[in-house]
Amino acid sequence: MSTLTPNILAELEKQAIELPSWAFGNSGTRFKVFGTPGTPRDPFEKVSDAAQVHRLTGLAPTVALHIPWDKSDYDALRQHASDEGVALGTINSNTFQDDDYKFGALTHEDGRIRQKAIDHHLECIDIMHATGSRDLKIWLAEGSNYPGQADMRGRQDRLHESLQTIYARLGEEQRLVLEYKFFEPAFYHTDVPDWGTSYAQVAALGDKALVCLDTGHHAPGTNIEFIVMQLLRLGKLGSFDFNSRFYADDDLIVGAADPFQLFRIVFEVVRGGGLNNPDVQFMLDQCHNVENKILGQTRSVLNVQEMTARALLVDTDALREAQISGDPLAANQVFMDAFYTDVRPALAEWRESRGLPADPMRAFAESGYQQKIEQERAGGQQAGWGA
Amino acid sequence: MSTLTPNILAELEKQAIELPSWAFGNSGTRFKVFGTPGTPRDPFEKVSDAAQVHRLTGLAPTVALHIPWDKSDYDALRQHASDEGVALGTINSNTFQDDDYKFGALTHEDGRIRQKAIDHHLECIDIMHATGSRDLKIWLAEGSNYPGQADMRGRQDRLHESLQTIYARLGEEQRLVLEYKFFEPAFYHTDVPDWGTSYAQVAALGDKALVCLDTGHHAPGTNIEFIVMQLLRLGKLGSFDFNSRFYADDDLIVGAADPFQLFRIVFEVVRGGGLNNPDVQFMLDQCHNVENKILGQTRSVLNVQEMTARALLVDTDALREAQISGDPLAANQVFMDAFYTDVRPALAEWRESRGLPADPMRAFAESGYQQKIEQERAGGQQAGWGA
Amino acid sequence: MSTLTPNILAELEKQAIELPSWAFGNSGTRFKVFGTPGTPRDPFEKVSDAAQVHRLTGLAPTVALHIPWDKSDYDALRQHASDEGVALGTINSNTFQDDDYKFGALTHEDGRIRQKAIDHHLECIDIMHATGSRDLKIWLAEGSNYPGQADMRGRQDRLHESLQTIYARLGEEQRLVLEYKFFEPAFYHTDVPDWGTSYAQVAALGDKALVCLDTGHHAPGTNIEFIVMQLLRLGKLGSFDFNSRFYADDDLIVGAADPFQLFRIVFEVVRGGGLNNPDVQFMLDQCHNVENKILGQTRSVLNVQEMTARALLVDTDALREAQISGDPLAANQVFMDAFYTDVRPALAEWRESRGLPADPMRAFAESGYQQKIEQERAGGQQAGWGA
Amino acid sequence: MSTLTPNILAELEKQAIELPSWAFGNSGTRFKVFGTPGTPRDPFEKVSDAAQVHRLTGLAPTVALHIPWDKSDYDALRQHASDEGVALGTINSNTFQDDDYKFGALTHEDGRIRQKAIDHHLECIDIMHATGSRDLKIWLAEGSNYPGQADMRGRQDRLHESLQTIYARLGEEQRLVLEYKFFEPAFYHTDVPDWGTSYAQVAALGDKALVCLDTGHHAPGTNIEFIVMQLLRLGKLGSFDFNSRFYADDDLIVGAADPFQLFRIVFEVVRGGGLNNPDVQFMLDQCHNVENKILGQTRSVLNVQEMTARALLVDTDALREAQISGDPLAANQVFMDAFYTDVRPALAEWRESRGLPADPMRAFAESGYQQKIEQERAGGQQAGWGA
Repeated sequence: MSTLTPNILAELEKQAIELPSWAFGNSGTRFKVFGTPGTPRDPFEKVSDAAQVHRLTGLAPTVALHIPWDKSDYDALRQHASDEGVALGTINSNTFQDDDYKFGALTHEDGRIRQKAIDHHLECIDIMHATGSRDLKIWLAEGSNYPGQADMRGRQDRLHESLQTIYARLGEEQRLVLEYKFFEPAFYHTDVPDWGTSYAQVAALGDKALVCLDTGHHAPGTNIEFIVMQLLRLGKLGSFDFNSRFYADDDLIVGAADPFQLFRIVFEVVRGGGLNNPDVQFMLDQCHNVENKILGQTRSVLNVQEMTARALLVDTDALREAQISGDPLAANQVFMDAFYTDVRPALAEWRESRGLPADPMRAFAESGYQQKIEQERAGGQQAGWGA
Repeated sequence: MSTLTPNILAELEKQAIELPSWAFGNSGTRFKVFGTPGTPRDPFEKVSDAAQVHRLTGLAPTVALHIPWDKSDYDALRQHASDEGVALGTINSNTFQDDDYKFGALTHEDGRIRQKAIDHHLECIDIMHATGSRDLKIWLAEGSNYPGQADMRGRQDRLHESLQTIYARLGEEQRLVLEYKFFEPAFYHTDVPDWGTSYAQVAALGDKALVCLDTGHHAPGTNIEFIVMQLLRLGKLGSFDFNSRFYADDDLIVGAADPFQLFRIVFEVVRGGGLNNPDVQFMLDQCHNVENKILGQTRSVLNVQEMTARALLVDTDALREAQISGDPLAANQVFMDAFYTDVRPALAEWRESRGLPADPMRAFAESGYQQKIEQERAGGQQAGWGA
Repeated sequence: MSTLTPNILAELEKQAIELPSWAFGNSGTRFKVFGTPGTPRDPFEKVSDAAQVHRLTGLAPTVALHIPWDKSDYDALRQHASDEGVALGTINSNTFQDDDYKFGALTHEDGRIRQKAIDHHLECIDIMHATGSRDLKIWLAEGSNYPGQADMRGRQDRLHESLQTIYARLGEEQRLVLEYKFFEPAFYHTDVPDWGTSYAQVAALGDKALVCLDTGHHAPGTNIEFIVMQLLRLGKLGSFDFNSRFYADDDLIVGAADPFQLFRIVFEVVRGGGLNNPDVQFMLDQCHNVENKILGQTRSVLNVQEMTARALLVDTDALREAQISGDPLAANQVFMDAFYTDVRPALAEWRESRGLPADPMRAFAESGYQQKIEQERAGGQQAGWGA
Repeated sequence: MSTLTPNILAELEKQAIELPSWAFGNSGTRFKVFGTPGTPRDPFEKVSDAAQVHRLTGLAPTVALHIPWDKSDYDALRQHASDEGVALGTINSNTFQDDDYKFGALTHEDGRIRQKAIDHHLECIDIMHATGSRDLKIWLAEGSNYPGQADMRGRQDRLHESLQTIYARLGEEQRLVLEYKFFEPAFYHTDVPDWGTSYAQVAALGDKALVCLDTGHHAPGTNIEFIVMQLLRLGKLGSFDFNSRFYADDDLIVGAADPFQLFRIVFEVVRGGGLNNPDVQFMLDQCHNVENKILGQTRSVLNVQEMTARALLVDTDALREAQISGDPLAANQVFMDAFYTDVRPALAEWRESRGLPADPMRAFAESGYQQKIEQERAGGQQAGWGA
């Protein structure tokens, strides 16, 4: 009856996508950050909004924090999350908003500043113990704007040393995931620009260090699903930061720019054993400049879920047969048949069967939650990237 | 003796490159704006810093203003500029920092907001009368982030109407230059994304409307000098915004990312009769996130000058001969011979002969100006993109 | 009952997509052209294969020819097409396979070679009279590989003159469509690299000259549907060459690389009044390096049809309401709802109601046609790009 | 007196750049290969032409062969090279021109075809013993054109197995260098698309397996010098294939498209200890579609030499000082000062002092060699990529 088999539904049942606390704060471009009514003013309100997404979808049981933006009484925050039905997740460090880091942090020429950046990460690990988080995610804004400005080689060596010190502090069950990014905020060179660099750096650290793949952080034309395949093959894919982009922004809703690319990525996750594998954390890393933030997150996790359903629909026997027989059109058709299957009605039905709203987007609109927070959150300083 | 002939020097003598007032304020990325000591706090101090660049190089006799960032007593500002040995230049409008413009300005669905944006431009024209400026430069931040969000066609039609109203207000000697930009701050569609759109829009207005070509606003792989050629051929190249970029930023020092590209661009300017042609305004549009601002501007105008000297060195007779005979290597060699000629010593010598410092970068360092402004400009609010 | 309303089906009923004769010949890369059994050896066999696609889909009533590859007894070929149930369509010129054209054709420095290239186009116009074709499509392989090699400005002027001469020969009902291409086979500059150049050139010719938009001929990140919108707005969109690409090839099956992009393109065609508008010719321009050629073409026209059905499903009232109210998520959802609707079952049903196979791909496999041509077409020289 | 110090000249004295035999044969695009008079008809004539480049420049003492294009009596060819004053170098395998390899070679689903491809490489190793070559260079054309067509993961695993078998056959002093390429001739996925994949594959083989970096094989915007730095740091940079490109071709003369990029690349080679280091082979991999082939190669090695001279001119003490002090403009100026220094006169002088022509390009024109080969090489089949 349904397009989705019990096996597929059983897989989907297990799916969990972590939300970033900062998605609920204001964000924008270097030209303008538009504030919006109801924006949280502290980590507690962010967690409440995130929990709302989980209530609507059943897909988002954890919330990632960003330090120092989410500095807080962590016991209280952890309790608050629990009260809201979610848990605290990955801890994200920040070494890009202090004047000291103008020319680098973990790679800086000056040992004092490197130590400051290392200490920040050690503090993050302490926070992880308080929040019960497993993963320390490191995205480095480091690099240079002009050729000659930086000694790229020396920086790479210092990066290794700094990471080693941080890695040494990790608890038994904790992990370090190192994100790479093609460009921005540095414009000439970036110290961890590609998966190869991230892989080489984490491989030199040990088993608890892995790569974080942010879907928006690649050069144009890059075959991202190939990288997914390769990192899974090498046993080093630690987590995903999902989002999408058309050119160089990286904060659009996952699946919004190129849904078929997301399909191919999730298919490779399934192919490589990464689906619902605790070693491969699914996470969003995106913000909402012009759209409603809670709905933006809701749409995002639904997009990942829908695409996972489609990826699971691929008739892998038929696909293998076509691949082996050297029939590109037949193989592609198997692929496209799954992609073009409309899984939304079956997911809506299944959602209802689990006590979730058939249409989470509409349910939010009808819930009055947005109106409530717009009223309640008058006054105070809205959260953004600076706080 | 010199690598530069009297004819070349006579051309260089006439060269003028307008500076943007905002280059002297703080700027950065969406992640962080680093403040720097000595940053101007008002348009008067920006003009003083710009005048410093002109004193060092003889290349930058005018300063472009940005409204509302440079709102001011224009008579006083004009007098101040004159006292400093420079003049006020292009007026730049701003329709991207008001909450009303979240979903467009000149293209907005709502007539009230369109009128507000039009009124802003009419005010800019009034200011042009006060400042003695010829050009109104319009860069539009308008567009959308998600497919479906905007009716691109309706916006294009409304853009035409809005521009027509603005154009109608231009004085006899005034011009409107319309800048295009490939992407950012809108991430899915931009209302004036390419030279073709800017050209079609200004062609529909009349002779006083022209295209502004910003060297950092193109898709990867775009042959920018081809566009320079084409716009000159069509009689619609109104001005340049010079800067450079490696990937998607557009605020690096002109010539810093790809000096040979700048050479090719200036060569086409010369080829098409655009050099020292009052109809083709040379301007910088770049900011300085991590480097000294006054030196950054100084380096930029020197780069344009040096590349102009190299472009003028091309042996056009030999080039034509090689082109006509179908000898790509010979033609390319003529080109490269000019590019690889070191014009810096001859320019230094010539600069001295005109009472300018041989080495403007060093002269600035030795002038004590930076120390002076760092001391004098204590307190107050440093200027940035928001003010 | 069906996802497709009678109005939508009535639109689809009218849809026609022209096939390129060369899609049925061998093609490949500079590294290797793989031959395949059954490949046509002359234009008659190509037309027969094209007719097969039309029989399977009802979507491809005309076949474009490429001169000189399809030089022939045109009366006989026209009759053959008619016998097969199709007609001859656009005539494509070729100025890239003669040694004389190494450094240009319509733009060449040497008047003799320009005249030769002009004469070729005049011959094409003569052929159009014989074949009953309306459109002369000009794609120019001209450009240069090295900076300095060519005088881009002079070439542009000569291009205008050459096109004027060709244009003057067009019959009353004939048209000239000028294709643009970002790069290849020239690697530094291309004489018609972008829509702006094509537009400026055809606008200078007259009403019978229009732009051909090839979906594979843009820089990375280009918003192609924006160009569709703009050209329709300017009344200058003459035809589409459909295909797709991931990076720089431009011969993959339309919709294969980014189906959502195709959706957005077709949506703008509908929005701008270009659907089933005789002034806007739909055409494929793609070859099949590794897949079955007849199936490749069949898949392609089906992809265009399916995406047209989806584009017609957009609830434009709801879309406008969301756009006007400034709700990006709601607008995007209207868009995505149409895109994600599975139109394939309804199209299969409708196809059957028109006496066409429900599954054209399977019908071809079962038809024995491929086996037949593999047997019959033994011996002779298989057609390719060189013949 | 000279801009080049004795130390720099001593470094340049040691520089050697290998030439590809195929640069002397015809090449082109998928649209057309233009033949040229005097093109070699066999490996002996190719070696003679390559030797001519060495006579003119002193820079190109070895010639790389491509199997099977250069299949030959290797003893005779080796003797011929020696007679001409050069030696045979790297052996390049070819698994892209046999019908069997339509869907892969070392990665093929079919074990028979994989074995055939492996055997080809074993034959290449045998040839290396005959020619006295150290390096086996493997560039793989493998990949797929459509999503779903290929099981990327399975292919990656089979690639590892195939490479292992080949690696096991290497002699004590022999090496395997694995080239990566972003795209082409496969258009959807490429089995070795990036340095990370090449690095992971060769790291799994052993010390005698290294990465070959082809300067034309990256996504747009890639910071290639960063990769040079990283591979040197990891001890895995085996060789360079030098060439340049504007967009997607990769066969333009090295340094022609972006000379400053070449400067930055060579600077990182020097910085990382790769200059005149036998472990890091410099090689050209480029062809000449429209320009004279011998002059094209001559220009190329001169470009590498000139850029090496400029890279050696960087005042590394001043650079370090500026880097450490956090002065981007000062550091960049040190860099640019070296880049803008005109090293050509000093190199011409030095060339003469070594008994080489001051102007190798002119010397070739005056030598009569081209006229001679055009006369002598009448008849026969000109060499190209197919032979």
